[in-house]
Amino acid sequence: MKRKGIIIVVSGFSGAGKGTIMKELTRKYDQYALSISATTRKPREGEENGREYFFISKEEFEKLIEEDGLIEHAKYVDNYYGTPRKYVEDKLSQGIDVILEIEIQGALQIKERYNDAVLLFVMPPSAKVLEERLRGRGTETDEVIRKRLSRANEEAIGIENYDYIVINDNLQDSVECVHEIISAAHLSPARNQEFINTIRKELGELN
Amino acid sequence: MKRKGIIIVVSGFSGAGKGTIMKELTRKYDQYALSISATTRKPREGEENGREYFFISKEEFEKLIEEDGLIEHAKYVDNYYGTPRKYVEDKLSQGIDVILEIEIQGALQIKERYNDAVLLFVMPPSAKVLEERLRGRGTETDEVIRKRLSRANEEAIGIENYDYIVINDNLQDSVECVHEIISAAHLSPARNQEFINTIRKELGELN
Repeated sequence: MKRKGIIIVVSGFSGAGKGTIMKELTRKYDQYALSISATTRKPREGEENGREYFFISKEEFEKLIEEDGLIEHAKYVDNYYGTPRKYVEDKLSQGIDVILEIEIQGALQIKERYNDAVLLFVMPPSAKVLEERLRGRGTETDEVIRKRLSRANEEAIGIENYDYIVINDNLQDSVECVHEIISAAHLSPARNQEFINTIRKELGELN
Repeated sequence: MKRKGIIIVVSGFSGAGKGTIMKELTRKYDQYALSISATTRKPREGEENGREYFFISKEEFEKLIEEDGLIEHAKYVDNYYGTPRKYVEDKLSQGIDVILEIEIQGALQIKERYNDAVLLFVMPPSAKVLEERLRGRGTETDEVIRKRLSRANEEAIGIENYDYIVINDNLQDSVECVHEIISAAHLSPARNQEFINTIRKELGELN
């Protein structure tokens, strides 16, 4: 039976640890690939084109939108972010599950276009832990931390649009948890229609 | 966070191995309980009241229906089969997942009443394997095997009503697969509303 890949959308509060979980998941299992977004924002220090993002111009981005070359896109603080279609669809057809780390706006676009996509929302065990993690990074000013907490407050409104929540208390547990969710998702009848039809045909012949 | 149990409905072709998987699952993990059905059919040799079934009279069964004491019931070949409500709801409220091995008629009744129930359909890797397993038991006449295959043929029509299929090639793999599906099911936002509300409240207070 040929396995087709699934799109997995991952959102979550900044500081909840979604990036770390997804990096560890793709390191541990071959069946997953991380999609890289395109953006018009400028690279930060240490960021590399094609690793964190594809850094492109506003004109290039708008051309991609026009050509339907993005499967979702959104604008945040004057910058575009989007997911190039080609990489995702190539991987899916190879049977590889593709992980998209995107925000709710894009998540809902994906769900509309790919109704069998699986939407995950990564959460900390408590708001207190989230605040501690944000402070613990030691790199952010109070102002930035307040902004992130305020952002989390807004993002929390959309949680019910997701299929699953992942409570990130421990990295390895969360990785296994995400792997379980995706493994289960592969077992829906819709994703196994070919197999079901084959068994039906065989049973018909035996009868 | 208080965990509430989930109803897991398991159907599948006779000979696909669903009984064996569920017995091993409940042996291996504490969080599952097998519901015992009530029936009006006569016990077969070796069957015990309260172990395979609760064997009751037609009058008792119809009284249970009347009192809404069954969460599903169906009639097959002049005999009633049904799931007593009390056992299931007691276990659910204790946080235990309850497994119901029932046919499609009952499965659809459960889904209607408990929309967060998880419906599994256990299948053999192929129709050939199913036939071999049925013959391999060595206890059945050709006539009975033909009847079972014909029954499987009818049951196969309903597979798309189930949430997941489990392809039973290897017992331990299937047990883990069912365990993964149920673990994932516990992570829906609807089943974690209390936790989500708490985080929202905490975030609101931090902001």
